Amino acid sequence: MPSISQKGQLMPQSPIRKLVPFAEAAKTRGVEIHHLNIGQPDIKTPEGALNAVRNTNIEVLAYSHSAGFASYRNKLASYYKRNGIEVDTSDIIVSTGGSEALLFAMGSITDPGDEIIIPEPFYANYNGFATASGVQVVPVISTLEEGFALPPIADFEKLISDKTKAIVICNPGNPTGYLYSKEEIEQLAILVKKHDLFLIADEVYREFAYDGLQHHSVMSQRDIDDHTIMIDSVSKRYSMCGARIGCIVSRNKEVIATAMKFAQARLSPPTFAQLAAEAALDTPDSYFTQVIEEYVARRDTLVQGLESIPGVKVAKPKGAFYCIAELPVKNADHFAQWLLESFDLNGKTAMVAPAAGFYSSNGVGLNQVRIAYVLEESALKEAVEILREALKVYQD
Amino acid sequence: MPSISQKGQLMPQSPIRKLVPFAEAAKTRGVEIHHLNIGQPDIKTPEGALNAVRNTNIEVLAYSHSAGFASYRNKLASYYKRNGIEVDTSDIIVSTGGSEALLFAMGSITDPGDEIIIPEPFYANYNGFATASGVQVVPVISTLEEGFALPPIADFEKLISDKTKAIVICNPGNPTGYLYSKEEIEQLAILVKKHDLFLIADEVYREFAYDGLQHHSVMSQRDIDDHTIMIDSVSKRYSMCGARIGCIVSRNKEVIATAMKFAQARLSPPTFAQLAAEAALDTPDSYFTQVIEEYVARRDTLVQGLESIPGVKVAKPKGAFYCIAELPVKNADHFAQWLLESFDLNGKTAMVAPAAGFYSSNGVGLNQVRIAYVLEESALKEAVEILREALKVYQD
Repeated sequence: MPSISQKGQLMPQSPIRKLVPFAEAAKTRGVEIHHLNIGQPDIKTPEGALNAVRNTNIEVLAYSHSAGFASYRNKLASYYKRNGIEVDTSDIIVSTGGSEALLFAMGSITDPGDEIIIPEPFYANYNGFATASGVQVVPVISTLEEGFALPPIADFEKLISDKTKAIVICNPGNPTGYLYSKEEIEQLAILVKKHDLFLIADEVYREFAYDGLQHHSVMSQRDIDDHTIMIDSVSKRYSMCGARIGCIVSRNKEVIATAMKFAQARLSPPTFAQLAAEAALDTPDSYFTQVIEEYVARRDTLVQGLESIPGVKVAKPKGAFYCIAELPVKNADHFAQWLLESFDLNGKTAMVAPAAGFYSSNGVGLNQVRIAYVLEESALKEAVEILREALKVYQD
Repeated sequence: MPSISQKGQLMPQSPIRKLVPFAEAAKTRGVEIHHLNIGQPDIKTPEGALNAVRNTNIEVLAYSHSAGFASYRNKLASYYKRNGIEVDTSDIIVSTGGSEALLFAMGSITDPGDEIIIPEPFYANYNGFATASGVQVVPVISTLEEGFALPPIADFEKLISDKTKAIVICNPGNPTGYLYSKEEIEQLAILVKKHDLFLIADEVYREFAYDGLQHHSVMSQRDIDDHTIMIDSVSKRYSMCGARIGCIVSRNKEVIATAMKFAQARLSPPTFAQLAAEAALDTPDSYFTQVIEEYVARRDTLVQGLESIPGVKVAKPKGAFYCIAELPVKNADHFAQWLLESFDLNGKTAMVAPAAGFYSSNGVGLNQVRIAYVLEESALKEAVEILREALKVYQD
């Protein structure tokens, strides 16, 4: 029997998926689960986006251009301009989700053996894309005590070698909810210029900035045009995770020309979903006002609830819809499994993502979990009570 | 300015895309183009598939399971059984087009520096997926004189080294239209067993087998269950190229478990398109009867037409909707460009794909083109007359 590859063996399993069998066991024993474990919002997709697909008069479902429909890319450029990001249509390639945009970016700027530096905790699938590209993730630790702010630049510099090709950030952050300040982005700009690195910013949560804070895109940092690669997606913005439409944006012409070769090899992004994504750009601002009000209310309910549990610490998120909570347990992995296997409060339990999977350093974040506040406030209140009661009886 | 990767530099450009600027020039000078250059069928997508999306009552466009909707995978398993391929739902992972299925396969079984052997001419994007995976394509030449039949097994054996991980075939073939016989598949089975290799078969044109010939899937070769990986797609079958839905199928549990980790990293295949693909499986057999009648009529018109041009040789295709034609020119690349730049017959010209891009051996196939018969017979007749008249005046 022929064997699978080393790469295949090294591919990490999603930290969330590991719990799926235990979630099934919970259902089997009749326990209802509050899903705080994944970033699948419950918010309705804008009607306009869905109607664009419902009303389609397509007769032959043909390939689109490999870079995506020109009409969609033009409208995307206008959307970015409205958000203070001056880009041309030719700086944008539409991708199959933000995931594919990251793969295009890594393929265009890294070779096997190269390294990328990422502040951790970070979105677990960055590990998967790095492994698929043969690239080593070098983590720089950010801490709950500092609210997951940008680690000191000196910490980055200690890790930079001639193998380093890029620094990757997620802003606002999954799983931290941290929103980088203008000053932090400026520090990164100085760093990547000094060491001639790329700065890849995953900005899929751009709109989800709270408490009057402004999102500062790496694309607004005009002194590093040749260094910046922005990753984007409609998944969270319009609650369209199943569309699988994202994009890679860069003013570095060589990067876009190279990414385009990867895009051509896979022919085109999905046609139906592009229709929906294009129509989604007409979503009125009132949609976001409402959605953001809702997330802020949820965040406040969740954070206040968690902070009222003895021994629980939270870094209050400023954006996105996740927070990292430190629990009074030794092994959050085991606690999360136990919640599904052995606990319930009035027939209900909660599913959380153990945070260790968001760190690539070993032994870090073992007592932390990521909680996605993608459920309505009443469910979040119940989930907090479940955690409170569970922590009273749980034995490490 | 940071530099792009070696991988990015090595990524091949699609042989078809190179001609795009010349096609634009043709349009600018007011000349209409018969597009014989790409495998984008003009056949209508089944209404049922389109209606499944038009009638959707989705409110939150959520991620699907990373392996695809269970309902779709179950129906796919039944479809395969109807086609004599006994597979379980758990042997199938739904992918974003056949392209992603190939990337999952390569990631699961190869490491950078490994080799895969492919009979050439082959689908040009295999080069792109191999480059993206850091894998070397080792071509084994099949010839127009032999109708692009499987090269002698001895030719494969000469190329097998300890770096060889797989043999890749496309059956029926793009760009050759060749349909491998049961005996040829059996020879490959003996070969991969003897050398402990994987056999990856791209079978996206399964239904397009003509002249009463039967398609013989590698999955029917039950003595090599652990060796076979089938790549599939709805793109050509249902004229749904823009859906971007394919799948990877294998009875090797380790391969599927590994491919699943790649699938999880990118979260899910597109939701709308899965609805359409699932509904497409209910397409009545009469659809295929009609479509195949149409393609056979087109093939016959095209092949007879081409054979009537002095100096042109064609390998009559037995399947798919492509044929390779040898032209009485030195450099088909230049001829294809000249057709767009400088020739017209009554205001019309033809766009063909130079075949050199389908060979990875240098200097092979220089006088060949690939013609896709994806246009109606009247257009194909015009295209043949354009080629006939063009070849009379063209100077190498």
